Amino acid sequence: MIEKIYKNFNIDNAARRGQVTTPHGSFQTPAFMPVGTSGAVKALTSGDLEECGAEIILGNTYHLYLRPGTDIIEAQGGLAKFNGWNKPTLTDSGGYQVFSLQDISKITDDGVEFRSHHDGSKHMFTPEKVMEIEHAIGADIIMAFDQCVPYPADRALAELGVKRTFDWLKRCVLRFEQISDNTEKRRLSLLGIVQGSTYKDLRKLSAEQVTSIDLPGYAVGGLSVGESKSEMEDMLAHTIQFLPEDKPRYLMGVGYPEDILMAVSYGIDMFDCVLPTRNARTGNVFTSEGQLTYRNAQYANQDIPLDPNCDCKVCQRYSRAYIRHLYNQSEITGMVLASYHSTYFFQNLMKQIRSAIEANKFDQFRKEFLDKYNN
Amino acid sequence: MIEKIYKNFNIDNAARRGQVTTPHGSFQTPAFMPVGTSGAVKALTSGDLEECGAEIILGNTYHLYLRPGTDIIEAQGGLAKFNGWNKPTLTDSGGYQVFSLQDISKITDDGVEFRSHHDGSKHMFTPEKVMEIEHAIGADIIMAFDQCVPYPADRALAELGVKRTFDWLKRCVLRFEQISDNTEKRRLSLLGIVQGSTYKDLRKLSAEQVTSIDLPGYAVGGLSVGESKSEMEDMLAHTIQFLPEDKPRYLMGVGYPEDILMAVSYGIDMFDCVLPTRNARTGNVFTSEGQLTYRNAQYANQDIPLDPNCDCKVCQRYSRAYIRHLYNQSEITGMVLASYHSTYFFQNLMKQIRSAIEANKFDQFRKEFLDKYNN
Repeated sequence: MIEKIYKNFNIDNAARRGQVTTPHGSFQTPAFMPVGTSGAVKALTSGDLEECGAEIILGNTYHLYLRPGTDIIEAQGGLAKFNGWNKPTLTDSGGYQVFSLQDISKITDDGVEFRSHHDGSKHMFTPEKVMEIEHAIGADIIMAFDQCVPYPADRALAELGVKRTFDWLKRCVLRFEQISDNTEKRRLSLLGIVQGSTYKDLRKLSAEQVTSIDLPGYAVGGLSVGESKSEMEDMLAHTIQFLPEDKPRYLMGVGYPEDILMAVSYGIDMFDCVLPTRNARTGNVFTSEGQLTYRNAQYANQDIPLDPNCDCKVCQRYSRAYIRHLYNQSEITGMVLASYHSTYFFQNLMKQIRSAIEANKFDQFRKEFLDKYNN
Repeated sequence: MIEKIYKNFNIDNAARRGQVTTPHGSFQTPAFMPVGTSGAVKALTSGDLEECGAEIILGNTYHLYLRPGTDIIEAQGGLAKFNGWNKPTLTDSGGYQVFSLQDISKITDDGVEFRSHHDGSKHMFTPEKVMEIEHAIGADIIMAFDQCVPYPADRALAELGVKRTFDWLKRCVLRFEQISDNTEKRRLSLLGIVQGSTYKDLRKLSAEQVTSIDLPGYAVGGLSVGESKSEMEDMLAHTIQFLPEDKPRYLMGVGYPEDILMAVSYGIDMFDCVLPTRNARTGNVFTSEGQLTYRNAQYANQDIPLDPNCDCKVCQRYSRAYIRHLYNQSEITGMVLASYHSTYFFQNLMKQIRSAIEANKFDQFRKEFLDKYNN
C-alpha cells in the first residue's frame, strides 16, 4: 500500500515535498533511487546505501528474472529481504531492457520475445508475464509493462508505442488483480507509465489514457533516451500537466543533477539513474563543483578529497591521489570509494532539495547549486 | 620505534601475548596483517578493516614502487596517510615478488634485475635500493631484502640464499642508517628475515647470522612455499629456538587458520596472507565450520549466513543465497561482502587466540576451534 502526503510550500515553481509509505517503510520525496540492477547497487552494500541516505532502491526485472530467477527471490522472502535492504524497493518492468536489446527482440501486440544476454535462451515478456514476475520479486512499487520507443521515433512508431502502452497497462491491471492476495491492496503498488516520444499530442493522449485508470502513481517514460535537454524539459513540462497532483510522479531514468533540479521544479517526485555508480566505476564522480574525471593524470598527487565540500566518509578520509591510484590499478576498493561518494552526493542533493522546498527556497537553492556546479 | 611488551601466560606451549608500538600506534599480538598489495586490501576500505579489528596492514613494496611510485606516496605523507589507514603499516621487501617472477628476473650478488609486470620496463632491486624505496614509502615496520628460494631447493641454492640473505641484510642496515633522519630510531623499524629452505643446519646458520645483528624483530621466511604442513611445522619448530624471546617473531605468508594456531603455539607473533581476501573473491570463505565454497549451486537457496556462528555485519544481514547470486553475476558487492566476512573471521580468530593465551587456555581453544573447523 502506498500513502502520499504532499505539501506545496512554493509559489514560484511546482516543486513539492512528500512522503510515500510502503509495506517496507516510508521514503521522502523528491527521492533519488539508486539502481540495484541485479539486486545490488554495483560496488555498494545495503549498509553503504543507508549511510548515504537512500530510502528506496530499484531492481531491474529483466536481470532478476534471468538471474537468480524469480523462484529464488520469492523463496527468500522477496527482493528487500533477499538483498538485505529491508526497506522500500521498486522494480521496473523490464521493458526498457528488452527494447534496448532490439536486435534480438521481436515486439508484437502480445509482448516481447527476446534472448537472454547470458546464454541466448529464448524468453517472452507479456504484460501478464511481467506482472507475475514482478509480483514474485515482491517489490513495494512495481512498474507496468510499457513500450518505450527509441529517439528519434517516427510518428507511426510513437503512436504504436502509446497504443500498446495503454493496452498493456489494462492487461497488467487485470492480471495483477488476479494474482494479488488482496486485490485492492496490491493494486495500490502498480504505477502506470506515460509514453508518446516527443509528440505533444501523443504525450497528452498517453497521459489521459494512463491516468484514466486509478493507480497510486504515474511515471513519465521515454525521456532521457537521446533527446536534447531542452526537448526533455519541453516534453516534461507539457506532460506533467496531465498527471494528477495528489499522486507521486516518477521521471524514469533521470539523471544529471541539473535534470533533477529542472524536473523537481515541475513537480516530479521520484528519480532513478545508474549514472552516479556507472560513472564512478569508470573514473568520474559528481562533486559540488561539477563532474570530476578523477582518473586523469592531473590528480595523481592531489592531497584533497574528491569533493572538498563533501562530508561523506570517503571525502573525510581519502585523497584524489589515492582514489586515482586505485582506479589505475583496477582495484575494487577504488570503485567502492568512488561509487560511495557519488551515491552520497546524489542523496545529499535530494536532501538539500527537500529542505529548500520546505523553506520555500527551492529556486534560490537551484540557482546557487548550479552556479557552483557549473563554475 | 617499536616497543615490545610480552607476557607468557602459558605453560603447556610457547604461545605468547604482546603489544608492538609504532609511530602510528600499537597493535596486539599475535596479529594477522591483511595484505594491501597496491595500498588497499582488495575490495575493502580502511574503515572496513578497522571494523573487522585489524590493527596493522601490509603493503607490497614491489607493487607500490611500480605504481603509484614512491615519489607520490612520499609526497602524500607515507603509506598510512596515503591509504587513509592512519595506523601501523608494514612493507615487505619486494623480494618474494621479484623471485616469483623468476623468468624475467636475473639474480646476482648485487641484487635482482626484473621487468615490470605492467609495461616490461627494466628495474633493479639491490638491498640499498630497497631500503631507499621502503624508507620513502614510510611504513612503520620494513622488511630487509632477502633471497627466498623456491621449494624444493637443492642444497647449493639454499646455501646461496642464506649467504645472500645475510650479506644483503648487512647492506640493508648500512644503507638504512645512512638515509634515516635519526639512525637509532629508524633502525628500530627494520626486521631481518631467516632463510634456509628445508635444511635444518642452514636454518640454524641463517637464524644465528640474522640475529647477530641487533634488530627490533625477526621473521621466518621461505616457508609456506609449497612444502607439506608437517615439514613447515618441523622447520618452524626448529628455527624459532634460535630467535630471541624478547622480540617480535613474524612468520611470513602464513596462512590457514590451522597453520596460524600451530605457529602461535611455537611463539610466532605476526602473520600475513592474501588467503582470506583472494579466496573470498573467487567464491570461497572461511567459517567456524571450515572453508565454504559459497559459489556452489547447493547454496543457491540457502537463507542462512555465510557463517551462522559469526557476528560480523555481513553475517548479520546477508544470506548465502544472495552472496552466491552476486558471485554468479560478478557483482563487485559480492566480492566486498565475502572479503569483509573472511577478513573479520581471521581478525576474530586472532582476538580469540589472544584471549585464550591470556586465560592460559590456548591449547584448549586450539583443540576446540579445530574440532569444529574440521568437522
